[in-house]
Amino acid sequence: MCASNRIWIYDTTLRDGAQREGIALSLEDKLKIARQVDQMGIPFIEGGWPGANPKDVQFFWKLQEEPLTQAEVVAFCSTRRPNKIAAEDPLLKAILAAGTRWVTIFGKSWDLHVTEGLKTTLEENLKMIADTIEYLLSQGRRVIYDAEHWFDGYKQNPDYALKTLKAAKNAGAEWLVLCDTNGGTLPHDISQIVQDVARKLEIKPDTDSVQLGIHTHNDSGTAVANGLAGVIEGVRMVQGTINGYGERCGNANLCTLIPNLQLKMGYDCLTENQLIQLTKSSRLISEIVNLAPDDHAPFVGRSAFAHKGGIHVSAVQKNPLTYEHIKPEEIGNERRIVISEQSGLSNVLSKAKTFGIELNKDDIACRNILEKIKELEHEGYQFEAAEASFELLMRQALGQREILFQLQGFQVHCDRLYGEGMPYTNALATIKVTVNGEDRLEVAEGNGPVSALDSALRKALVNFYPKIAEFHLTDYKVRILDGGSGTSANTRVLIESSNGKERWTTLGVSPNILEASYQAVVEGIEYGLLLNSAIKETVK
Amino acid sequence: MCASNRIWIYDTTLRDGAQREGIALSLEDKLKIARQVDQMGIPFIEGGWPGANPKDVQFFWKLQEEPLTQAEVVAFCSTRRPNKIAAEDPLLKAILAAGTRWVTIFGKSWDLHVTEGLKTTLEENLKMIADTIEYLLSQGRRVIYDAEHWFDGYKQNPDYALKTLKAAKNAGAEWLVLCDTNGGTLPHDISQIVQDVARKLEIKPDTDSVQLGIHTHNDSGTAVANGLAGVIEGVRMVQGTINGYGERCGNANLCTLIPNLQLKMGYDCLTENQLIQLTKSSRLISEIVNLAPDDHAPFVGRSAFAHKGGIHVSAVQKNPLTYEHIKPEEIGNERRIVISEQSGLSNVLSKAKTFGIELNKDDIACRNILEKIKELEHEGYQFEAAEASFELLMRQALGQREILFQLQGFQVHCDRLYGEGMPYTNALATIKVTVNGEDRLEVAEGNGPVSALDSALRKALVNFYPKIAEFHLTDYKVRILDGGSGTSANTRVLIESSNGKERWTTLGVSPNILEASYQAVVEGIEYGLLLNSAIKETVK
Repeated sequence: MCASNRIWIYDTTLRDGAQREGIALSLEDKLKIARQVDQMGIPFIEGGWPGANPKDVQFFWKLQEEPLTQAEVVAFCSTRRPNKIAAEDPLLKAILAAGTRWVTIFGKSWDLHVTEGLKTTLEENLKMIADTIEYLLSQGRRVIYDAEHWFDGYKQNPDYALKTLKAAKNAGAEWLVLCDTNGGTLPHDISQIVQDVARKLEIKPDTDSVQLGIHTHNDSGTAVANGLAGVIEGVRMVQGTINGYGERCGNANLCTLIPNLQLKMGYDCLTENQLIQLTKSSRLISEIVNLAPDDHAPFVGRSAFAHKGGIHVSAVQKNPLTYEHIKPEEIGNERRIVISEQSGLSNVLSKAKTFGIELNKDDIACRNILEKIKELEHEGYQFEAAEASFELLMRQALGQREILFQLQGFQVHCDRLYGEGMPYTNALATIKVTVNGEDRLEVAEGNGPVSALDSALRKALVNFYPKIAEFHLTDYKVRILDGGSGTSANTRVLIESSNGKERWTTLGVSPNILEASYQAVVEGIEYGLLLNSAIKETVK
Repeated sequence: MCASNRIWIYDTTLRDGAQREGIALSLEDKLKIARQVDQMGIPFIEGGWPGANPKDVQFFWKLQEEPLTQAEVVAFCSTRRPNKIAAEDPLLKAILAAGTRWVTIFGKSWDLHVTEGLKTTLEENLKMIADTIEYLLSQGRRVIYDAEHWFDGYKQNPDYALKTLKAAKNAGAEWLVLCDTNGGTLPHDISQIVQDVARKLEIKPDTDSVQLGIHTHNDSGTAVANGLAGVIEGVRMVQGTINGYGERCGNANLCTLIPNLQLKMGYDCLTENQLIQLTKSSRLISEIVNLAPDDHAPFVGRSAFAHKGGIHVSAVQKNPLTYEHIKPEEIGNERRIVISEQSGLSNVLSKAKTFGIELNKDDIACRNILEKIKELEHEGYQFEAAEASFELLMRQALGQREILFQLQGFQVHCDRLYGEGMPYTNALATIKVTVNGEDRLEVAEGNGPVSALDSALRKALVNFYPKIAEFHLTDYKVRILDGGSGTSANTRVLIESSNGKERWTTLGVSPNILEASYQAVVEGIEYGLLLNSAIKETVK
């Protein structure tokens, strides 16, 4: 089964990951994630628990119609019920109907969970494990056995815990996966216990027909380290989720585990080309589950290779290895120079360079930009998340910002009327802008005031700049800056726009949420036009 | 210096933590954080680098005027410049002016950083370390030596790296702190290298007058595990930050390290009573730095002891130890039962219980609530973050929600006019509500439309419910639910309100941001009144 040096990655984003508070996946979401994880080159994808969840039944059907390209999709299920016959258990029938080659069965390792949770005898639990696996094998399935609460169970009653694993091994499971279900075990304990198990069950890594796996949770903040500790002791399957999603504090983060295993410890998980897709996949999946990506995530986060302090920035440009633990390109991420209050001139210069603007350190414009940033940041602007607005600011300071239109004013009107039946809300925006010396007065409706404003502005500009028709907003975020002042606090609006290829983020700050939104919308349109125009070219 | 079993925690939130992208601390923020960390019982607090940063100079002055109660505040600085005299170095003068008893000096361990970064000789770097420490000692200071890039330097040139540590030791530093500055080292390497160092420098934990420390970063996702690995090998000082804030992927998270060391490994860091403050301190500091708390943070996160899946929920109620790795009370956190699409009846029942509502499983209302939740979640409502709105929903389903007022309608009007000078924006809201059978028509201005609406509503209600005057909004968040539809997407507004003692969160969903805000504002007021009223009492 195992080639030497190979680690089998097992993704459980769709089952354990979906348990995270705040995640609610549709069938369509699940299929999109499965196809993305398949593309990443991860060999096992746990799809869900058919039988316990109707959405999961449909998921497996859909994959039968249109299978994954390379990964094995795995159905998940518990052992049969106490004192019943495996062949008659409706949960196991549902598993077989899912039509997967591989099945993961989880069973109890901790005596307390058998007697208090299942309310059955320790002996019956061993039979449940063996029966279930034997039955699935007789139906042509290959079995992965997840030993639930393994580490806690082993600490409490090692003899019994080992009996459960032996039952699974003797029944024909190919993988015995040690689960730290409650996430409370620390790496030194993991090492010790995995060593014990491998010795007592006489499992040799890579060569035996049954191999060990590990499944860790992050309740102690050591899920990744626990996975690595397992591998060092001979484990050959590592289970986890994309971005570490999962119940409570999450599961082991595969986007961290994989580069650690592959780039630092010399194991094979993915091909080099697949590894380069890691950052992109992480962000795509965060979009599908509708959670903001974690900017500070190891390896794949937007800040993972960001340099802020002045010393770092000048040093990293001389020799990246002095301040970066790996090359960001290897996992498809990139180095970023961050602009902030603490920025020195070297940050401004190198940022300008990434925009294709050549600045000279002694140029007065350079100091002006720095002063302007500090002044605006004091007002609540933050350019770290809004590089498009920062580029516009920089071009303005250099006299390279073309004025595309001028706002004369706007009015927004919202009504909410409770009629006899449904309440009715409507928003209307009137806008006056000067474009090419011509005054344009336009009015538009919208679902809400921001969309009404956005529509009115587009209406006024689209004849002059037809490209605008291609732009759309992909994200809209609002944050109040000074919590104490409640609804009259200063608000910061971040808007992400897209033209279908590129994405860019702009910002606006004002106590009036509509004014802040308007600023961000306007800069979003302006930046989109800049991307398409000759202006950007000529400066480069 | 060291009592056995004691680990000295060293907090660098104010210096290394503040390097996190998105954090910009005012002097006032820094003082608030220092006093909070002092209260937590952490013995060393690194305040900043006076000399490099004028804000930090003021910070140390303020603490001279009004000292911390128990912690040592530490000033941070580099070794003297190459080929200069320590006593004449302006950076060291600034350090002395900070007036702290303890000083942390960082120096280069990695030969490459000496020759390429400092552009000096390896020999001169050793002198810089020794001179600086000796000079500070001669001025009555006690010295902690941070060996920058220790692990990378040691891997490249162990002999030279050890020479730098010996220079610091011989000069009289009391702590030698091994820093994984780039965060690239994995736990097994940390163990190996710390072991080597302790052996080669002949440092015995707890008894020698010089002791080892460790400073780790999270670029490999193992900062906490690296700190623990160091302690196992004899390190007695652990450096980190509250909530793991820090450059790139952050520093070792003290809110994770401390409970691991104390509750699981038996070391002494804080007193039991101090440990109980951990969750509160973590959240307070996240408020001061103006970042949303990480709900999924180990130990202190809002979801750290949240139970969602049906099986878990019923089991955890029987015996918490079967599904929780520690008792949440030990670190001041609490168990939560989460309401979501996957909720079973047992979740609804146990949630009701926390609201003081006794529900019967067979009660038809129970199923109605579950149906209603699923329907609303489908529309984009998410009650996980808005428990106050959920309680109102539950009371409504049970016929226990008192109707305090009825909205007849509202109108909002915003103008933005560019005059000769500054642009002018204004918002006006008109509202009509029925309270106690009486129609009230009110109008109010605001900085923006939401504050105008909020004001008009309060104006209409305050005579009937004078308590309203005490309520204020503490947070306001907006998220669009379907990114693809841009500004006309459905928006979800979360509003956090406070009466000065309690806090509660309510939500609203609508394509119109004003309508969604209005829903959340109204429920916020209603819930605040419920908290103060007899209604809640009678149901309990």
